[in-house]
Amino acid sequence: MIAGGDVEQFGKTDFEQLKNELLTMGGYVEKALEEATQALIQRDASRLENPERLEKEINRSHVLIDKHCLNLLAKLSPFATDLRRILASIKINSDLERMGDLAVNVSRNVKFYLTHKELPVDKDFLLLISEVRWMVKNVLDAFVSEDENKAEEVLKRDDVVDSLRHKINDFVRQIMKQDSTAVDSGVDFIFIAKNLERMGDHATNIAEDIIFILSGDDIRHGGLVNEKP
Amino acid sequence: MIAGGDVEQFGKTDFEQLKNELLTMGGYVEKALEEATQALIQRDASRLENPERLEKEINRSHVLIDKHCLNLLAKLSPFATDLRRILASIKINSDLERMGDLAVNVSRNVKFYLTHKELPVDKDFLLLISEVRWMVKNVLDAFVSEDENKAEEVLKRDDVVDSLRHKINDFVRQIMKQDSTAVDSGVDFIFIAKNLERMGDHATNIAEDIIFILSGDDIRHGGLVNEKP
Repeated sequence: MIAGGDVEQFGKTDFEQLKNELLTMGGYVEKALEEATQALIQRDASRLENPERLEKEINRSHVLIDKHCLNLLAKLSPFATDLRRILASIKINSDLERMGDLAVNVSRNVKFYLTHKELPVDKDFLLLISEVRWMVKNVLDAFVSEDENKAEEVLKRDDVVDSLRHKINDFVRQIMKQDSTAVDSGVDFIFIAKNLERMGDHATNIAEDIIFILSGDDIRHGGLVNEKP
Repeated sequence: MIAGGDVEQFGKTDFEQLKNELLTMGGYVEKALEEATQALIQRDASRLENPERLEKEINRSHVLIDKHCLNLLAKLSPFATDLRRILASIKINSDLERMGDLAVNVSRNVKFYLTHKELPVDKDFLLLISEVRWMVKNVLDAFVSEDENKAEEVLKRDDVVDSLRHKINDFVRQIMKQDSTAVDSGVDFIFIAKNLERMGDHATNIAEDIIFILSGDDIRHGGLVNEKP
């Protein structure tokens, strides 16, 4: 799976440890997303403290992992695959941190929403939630197993999520036009859907980073420049 | 301005070139933001093609700068300040790329808005626009001049921008409740304000990176871990 000709320099344990730190952080993100969205589906405000609590752990991991990457770069002066692994880890770390913020945003949106008029969490909304949760879970799996195919599957879901978000937006605009007492809830729904879609976008960023580690190809922006470093 | 005891290893020209590439990219972002917001203020749809055009340049810069950073890391095995400079450049590059996306989002929101009912772009909205433009301009200035004080001034504006965004949201919710024909425009305004606020957030990320280059202090998340690498 590693681009041909690359030499792996540092011990397996160096990268395994970094990987484990990122996976632990990813686990917090997954859990925060689960709690925030279950609070919405089950109208259960008691779950909304969990994302805030998990975000503290995520932020702590964020700072420590960046420091760990910096130390590895300074200590090992890596090149080829190992250098790509560390750089990709720095980016994955940023993405996971932002996903933690977004899960907290969803949680706060749900908190407001639960004080406003109840709206139907319809089929599209449930699908959006399950798609984004699938993307987060599977991009972490792709990272553990260094599985390029799985990373590509995650990339493909991005359009599905965007399209669901637009459908939800149109639906909510209609409700708000018909019923002025649904405006506050409608705005809450628009933000929840937007924040979920952004979590999906960050999962695709991570999928691109996984492909970059494994192949050395930068596929962002349609692969504008594709020469191995 | 550089943390004591650090040794600068690579020639001034290496970092100057990287810095110039980032500043050129930052200039595109600044221009895209100007065009998108002037299109809103002057109701001039003819300016809305410019952010899309500039985003192509921004994406191209994004890929090339990442590649440049990777090459510098592989070639020079830098440590201390130089290593921090390259890592911070990678992050600033990501932030500028995302700011380009957000300027395009604003531009698309404005495009929709101009087909919907006209709403007042009031004092708070004009202030939000000018605050975010100030943040983007000044964080780029702080980066050129490696000016920690200016970077800190940018950080301080984040709360002002958040508070303006909330005021605009409340105002728009009121309008939508009173006038169902203003719902589409209201949703457009909510997204424009949100995307502008996010541009301000990325400017604060860059300000934090500048402080990290100069002092070696990671001040993110309230400075959870502050030991120099």
